[in-house]
Parts: sequence; structure tokens; C-alpha cells
Amino acid sequence: MSRTALIAVGGNSLIRVGERGTVEEQLRNAHQTARKITQLVADGWRVVVTHGNGPQVGAALVRSERSSGEAYSQQLDVCVATTQGEIGYMLKRGLECELQRAGFYMPVMCMLTQVRVNPDDPAFTHPTKPIGPFYTQRVAEEKMRAFGWTMVEDAARGFRRVVPSPEPIEILELEVIRQVLDLGIIVIALGGGGIPVVIGEDHSVTGVEAVIDKDRASAILASGLGLDCFVISTDVDQVYLNYKQPTQRGVKRATADLMEHYLKENQFSAGSMGPKIEAAIRFVRNGGHDVFITSCDQLIEAIHGKAGTHITARPDHGQEE
Amino acid sequence: MSRTALIAVGGNSLIRVGERGTVEEQLRNAHQTARKITQLVADGWRVVVTHGNGPQVGAALVRSERSSGEAYSQQLDVCVATTQGEIGYMLKRGLECELQRAGFYMPVMCMLTQVRVNPDDPAFTHPTKPIGPFYTQRVAEEKMRAFGWTMVEDAARGFRRVVPSPEPIEILELEVIRQVLDLGIIVIALGGGGIPVVIGEDHSVTGVEAVIDKDRASAILASGLGLDCFVISTDVDQVYLNYKQPTQRGVKRATADLMEHYLKENQFSAGSMGPKIEAAIRFVRNGGHDVFITSCDQLIEAIHGKAGTHITARPDHGQEE
Repeated sequence: MSRTALIAVGGNSLIRVGERGTVEEQLRNAHQTARKITQLVADGWRVVVTHGNGPQVGAALVRSERSSGEAYSQQLDVCVATTQGEIGYMLKRGLECELQRAGFYMPVMCMLTQVRVNPDDPAFTHPTKPIGPFYTQRVAEEKMRAFGWTMVEDAARGFRRVVPSPEPIEILELEVIRQVLDLGIIVIALGGGGIPVVIGEDHSVTGVEAVIDKDRASAILASGLGLDCFVISTDVDQVYLNYKQPTQRGVKRATADLMEHYLKENQFSAGSMGPKIEAAIRFVRNGGHDVFITSCDQLIEAIHGKAGTHITARPDHGQEE
Repeated sequence: MSRTALIAVGGNSLIRVGERGTVEEQLRNAHQTARKITQLVADGWRVVVTHGNGPQVGAALVRSERSSGEAYSQQLDVCVATTQGEIGYMLKRGLECELQRAGFYMPVMCMLTQVRVNPDDPAFTHPTKPIGPFYTQRVAEEKMRAFGWTMVEDAARGFRRVVPSPEPIEILELEVIRQVLDLGIIVIALGGGGIPVVIGEDHSVTGVEAVIDKDRASAILASGLGLDCFVISTDVDQVYLNYKQPTQRGVKRATADLMEHYLKENQFSAGSMGPKIEAAIRFVRNGGHDVFITSCDQLIEAIHGKAGTHITARPDHGQEE
């Protein structure tokens, strides 16, 4: 039985700095990510791929807004579903092509994934996650009145909607993902952190206007599947302490306990590295062995201990402390 | 081993006549379709659900067009992928809810599906399928010059883009769908007829600007899976001869040979019932037993021989001829 790794691909990894984010650019970047994952497969790994959708779901909201009255509106849960189709298609195409070029004729499946959240999650009364287009103050005030949106001002660029980011409780497709993996199929799932839904006592499933942090949800999926290895692919090569300060230094290897200590020191930004570290700690505390946080380019080197940040349960030779 | 049926749900079945097509309306209609499919499951059937995407992919193109410059553009293959996410989510939610309400705790999976087409298909030089928004003559001429689009004039409503509708050759996910069905999972696949792709000799997969007829593609999927039963759910209760003429009469039951005879008499419109009849004939000629063409409301009655049109290989008691 092969080892299985969950690779959480950052939403920005398909749209790089300086790019306009055209589909052509995203497809080219998807192939680059796919080549790294193919190397993992060549090394004997089975993989589950999850991905973010920040720029893409933002674009979906802009499209829905700007065509209001000409095309029906899509609420946030539906927008997340569309990006699971869109990004899943690009990653699947890239993976199928790169795997076959490398001589691996294994199927890749992309499946829609819903994540249950608690309707009483405090996030619903304190929305924090900025999404979608920027508005002028006048338009922002109209939107807040008309739709009950919460909006925040971004100093330079105008007003922006903020939505709740509730805790993921349960991956509804967990058992199906497990069964499909057992068939030897590479699975792409949990796009954008999953479509956020609440479940009623009458079995009704209702989508909610929220976005789920994809690293938190990925940690739950990786633990639920009983995987050993969780890889968070992001836009920095490793985790840094005193980030962007003269005393900045990279973390090569650390225990979950040590990372929690750094977290409490507010070493990691709330909207970016913080949730990744929390997800890593959660995975290790739930029995997972290894978390690697690195850039897509260094993914293979990280797993071989030559790059990135490696978070484990117990200290080891070469451990920070 | 249960019998397995492929149910091809019409793209218009989620947006009914007189509706604006809001997500709320589509979800309500998805539940109605789901209740019928749940009855089939209660009767002991396993099901594969495919669906059209006409109104939804049209809306996706409008959104992409109208937000040009503010959000990146999505080509037609990507738009189809987004509708697989969107409609798949609505059908899956409806099905999961209705199945559980009826006491069936079986999983429902929605998977992205690509369909291979031939880049030399004559459809690419003779696009016929009208999609997306209507334009004035001036804007239409600009679009034709700028993007090389083919456009046709619709007498009353302006100019509209027409795209190729090539023959589906191969469902790329056929074996994966078979394996998932064998696990007892209800599969939603082949949305919008599948994402149209061409495959290069170097294993490259390239999306193409085309739409695949969902009934033709569904016939290939049903045959490829070796299913006995293929149900086409549409907006009429059965197939009619001399449709909308004083001599109109319904076809209750007929052989594929007889339907081919009617087809050659031009009894069925090219853009609507024609491809359904062709798909039905193809399925039966490839070894399928039963095709039912009916409305969603009459789906159960049709399978029990009490409504709809039943197309078979061989004549039977009660057969037309």
C-alpha cells in the first residue's frame, strides 16, 4: 500500500504575481503544479489534491455583480461550486497530461465537495474575510442597505464586502473520497475549502454565504482519511519567524508544540500564514505525522528534507528544539 | 445486482417556462427532479444522472462578457466546467436531501467530465448551435471581427453567436464512472454534454469552443457502461408525430427502426427532439434495451409503461407496428 499525501494548493498558485490571471496563464501554472505532483507520484505517493479559490471566486462575484439584471445572480455558495468546476478542470487537465507524459496512466477525478458548518458559529456575527470587488463609499452604502452586507474600508482601494469564515466541521464527501482513493484514483476535492452548507433536522442542505479556509478544511480531510502526510503549497518557500524584519529567519523543522508557541507570540499573520500553522498543528494533534509548508517549486525538495518547513509531533535529529 | 438507468435531465428542467431562473427557482426544481429520481431508487434502480446546461451556460457567457476588463474572460470550455459545478451542486443537494428524507442513505457524487471530440469534425467549419446573449448588428459585427465568431440573426431578437456542436467520441471518465457506480454511489456526470476537449499526440488536452449535445453524449455513456435503460427527461410528456399540427399524435411505443423511419420523414425538429431520437436509436443499436422519453413529472409512469414514449429494439405486444 502506497503512502498517501494531501497536497493543498494555494488559490494564488494558479495566478502568479505580475500576471493578469487569464485562463491561459492559469492553465500554464496548473501544468507546473501538475509536474511537481507527478514527481510525487513517481516517488510512489498516492495523492489527494485540494485547492484554494481566492482570485477565482472574487472574479466569479465580479461577473455576477456586473451582469446583474442580464443574468441571474449567483450567491457565494454557488460561486464556490462554479470555481470547483473551473479550477478542478484546469488542475485535472494539467495532471492528466503531465502524468501521461511521464508514463503514469492513472485516472484523476475531480469531485464536488460540501463542508458542514455550524449556523451558530460566531463567525456569522463577525464576518472577517474580504472578498470580491472594491466599491466606492456611495455604492458600498447602497449594497449594505439592499443586501445587509458587512463592508470594510481598504485604505487605498475603497470598500469591500467581508463574509464569515466559519470553522469547517465535517467534509460531507469524506467516505466517498476514501473509497475513490482506495481504487487508486487521484482525487481533486474540497476546492475553495468546500461549499459551505448547514444541515437542518429535516435533512435539508442549505448553502451559506461564507468562505471556509481551505487549509483548515484540508487538515480535517487529511485527518479524516487517516493520512500521514499533509503538504501546504503556498507562495513562500518556508515559514519565517520575524517575517520581513531584519531578524527574519526560516523554520526548517519544528514540533507542533513549538509552532504553537510561535503562534501565541503572534509570529504569523492572521489572514495568511496563521491559518496554515493552525491547520498543521491540528493535523499533527489528530495523529498525522508530517506537515510540509513550502512553495510549489520546492515541493519535492521539502518532502526530501532539503527545503521548506517540516512540522512533526516529536522532535528529531536536526530539530530546532 | 440492481438494474441501472441513466437519466438525462434537460437543461431547461431547472428553469421552467415563466420563471426568471433564479438560483432559488432552480433549487426548487432540482428538488422536484430529485423526488422523481428518489422514487426510482426506491423501486430498486441504481442511477447515473446527466444534465444539460443551456440556460446556465448562456448566463455564464453573459457574465464573462459583461465583466470583461474587470474579471478575466472564461472561454466556452471553462464556462461548461463552471456549470458542471453549479448545476451539479444544485442536483446533488436536491438528491441528497430527498434520498435521506425517503430513508435512503446512499452517497451522491458529482464528477467533472470531459468528452473527446475530433478536431476535424465538420461541425467546426459549420457551427450551428446558438448560445449566449443577443447583440445588435453593430456589436455583432465588432465581435465577429475581433474574435472570429460566427453569428446568426434571430428575426426578432438580434444577432447571436453560433458555436460548433461536434460529435462526442469518447467519455474520458467512462471507466472511473463505472468504478464509482460499482461502489453503489449515485453519480452525477457529463454536465452540459461534457467539457469538449481534443487530445494531442503528446497527451496534451485542449479545451475547444464548442458545445456537445447532452443526449448524444449520454447515449455514448449509457452504452459504454453497458446499461439497459436510458431515460431522456425533457419538457414534453412524450414524442409526437405531426407535432403542433391538427393531426398531432403521441408515440407510445416504437422500435428504433420505426423511429428512424419517422426521423427520415423529418418528423422531429433538428435542434430539439431530433438529437434525442438519434441518441435513442444509437443506444438501442449498441445493445441497449429501453429508452424512455418523457417529462420529469411523468418519469415513473413512463418506466411503468403508463406514460411517455418507449423505444426498444424489437416490437412487442402493444407496439405501434
